[in-house]
Amino acid sequence: MATLEEKTDIAVDGDTISGTFVTPGTLVPGVLLVHGWGGSQAQYLLRAREIASLGCICLTFDLRGHAQTRARYFETVTREQNMQDVLAAYDLLARRPHVDPNAIAVVGSSYGGYLAAILASMRPVKWLGLRAPALYIDDGWDSPKLQLHKDYDLQGYRQAFVPAEANRALRAVQRFEGDVLLVESQHDAIIPAMVLRSYREASKHARSLTYRCIAGADHGLTKQADQKAYQTLLVNWLSEMLFGARGPQTTASTEPEVALLPAQPETTPKAAV
Amino acid sequence: MATLEEKTDIAVDGDTISGTFVTPGTLVPGVLLVHGWGGSQAQYLLRAREIASLGCICLTFDLRGHAQTRARYFETVTREQNMQDVLAAYDLLARRPHVDPNAIAVVGSSYGGYLAAILASMRPVKWLGLRAPALYIDDGWDSPKLQLHKDYDLQGYRQAFVPAEANRALRAVQRFEGDVLLVESQHDAIIPAMVLRSYREASKHARSLTYRCIAGADHGLTKQADQKAYQTLLVNWLSEMLFGARGPQTTASTEPEVALLPAQPETTPKAAV
Repeated sequence: MATLEEKTDIAVDGDTISGTFVTPGTLVPGVLLVHGWGGSQAQYLLRAREIASLGCICLTFDLRGHAQTRARYFETVTREQNMQDVLAAYDLLARRPHVDPNAIAVVGSSYGGYLAAILASMRPVKWLGLRAPALYIDDGWDSPKLQLHKDYDLQGYRQAFVPAEANRALRAVQRFEGDVLLVESQHDAIIPAMVLRSYREASKHARSLTYRCIAGADHGLTKQADQKAYQTLLVNWLSEMLFGARGPQTTASTEPEVALLPAQPETTPKAAV
Repeated sequence: MATLEEKTDIAVDGDTISGTFVTPGTLVPGVLLVHGWGGSQAQYLLRAREIASLGCICLTFDLRGHAQTRARYFETVTREQNMQDVLAAYDLLARRPHVDPNAIAVVGSSYGGYLAAILASMRPVKWLGLRAPALYIDDGWDSPKLQLHKDYDLQGYRQAFVPAEANRALRAVQRFEGDVLLVESQHDAIIPAMVLRSYREASKHARSLTYRCIAGADHGLTKQADQKAYQTLLVNWLSEMLFGARGPQTTASTEPEVALLPAQPETTPKAAV
């Protein structure tokens, strides 16, 4: 069996000696989890735990403008900056010992789904999971994200079908040849069904497509049962993708099979996303 | 399955965002490898690779006075300082994610075997592997290690049987209730057979004792076949200890079963140890 080696410094008596960890060379899939606007890594932590227990190494993180960096960046952070955040997190995950860089899943919600879609055109991604992915006009890439809602009629933009060629995230999805999970919230006041349709039609080259609508759910999955439903969808999809075991398909109307986990809304339902 | 969480900082654009790795909670045995006087971690690297491929996490390291810190410490380093090195390395290994702190093996050669034996009285050690372990008078614990050879008749001390009560390393072995591997070199000009006898008789409370003499071998295992024989003994012993599979016992006279690995003498055969 191949092994991995990792140099390490060992602190002793105010000095440092050199050491080497040698570990089994087992490679496992990596899963990057990208929260939405107004959210934080904490929302994906419960999901990460369940996904890790499938045998994956997960990374969840706070986009700039959120959690610790909220005060410094919330008003000014641009899509370009948050894209750099996602790329930095991806690269950290991909080069972590034991992560198979050829078996990386990226999962994002809302604004995080939009960024995850674009990531798939910039880094090797095998599995792409998008829940209520947001959609923005390409213009203003370097404008503050908050400013986009003032400069553009995003609500209008999202009400109309957008052809894949006309949008950076949709172009990325159109070129993506891995497996896609798309999850819609039936009563999403932020991301209308038409946005999901644009993503769905863009997924024409995906090796497999799993499209689900969570009945009765709002954008932020404020109801605990909807959190559970998404968790079940996500874990079952990843489990099938990772292990290739084509068990019975789970739909949103199926009773969730995972243990009940405390729910936390992802975004304020009415927050601008 | 339980999972492990590990906070991480992600560098981006000269700033830092916060992330969390979530990984499968699998625990595996840890193996600490301690080189002898005049040696370095490099000697144990080949062994560490084979041991890691059994499914263990190994740590090998440079004692102060060796490799990068040779110039600064070689003349002055004391047993107390090297003991602190071993403790620091042990603690780093024991708290590393995925290492089971209740399943740690310590393996040492010569001076490293002496330190490993003492470690077993200071930290939880389940398996103790000693190859040609050295023996020193307890006095002068804080004297430079090199000075011991001038201040004491170590050769004389090692020619006589030493009762366990009269020596710190032997007392540690006497109290040790785990599994012990003792490996002698038949033609060891540095560590006479009597030292091995002292260690062997001290191992009276060991749960199991595996005592082997490598026929024709010198102290530093300068012959490649002797390196191979030790490698085989060590890997077979650890494999039996870890997996409890009581396969056929390997002796030094048995044809080694492992693949041929490039050999590197551990110490200059005539070096003072």
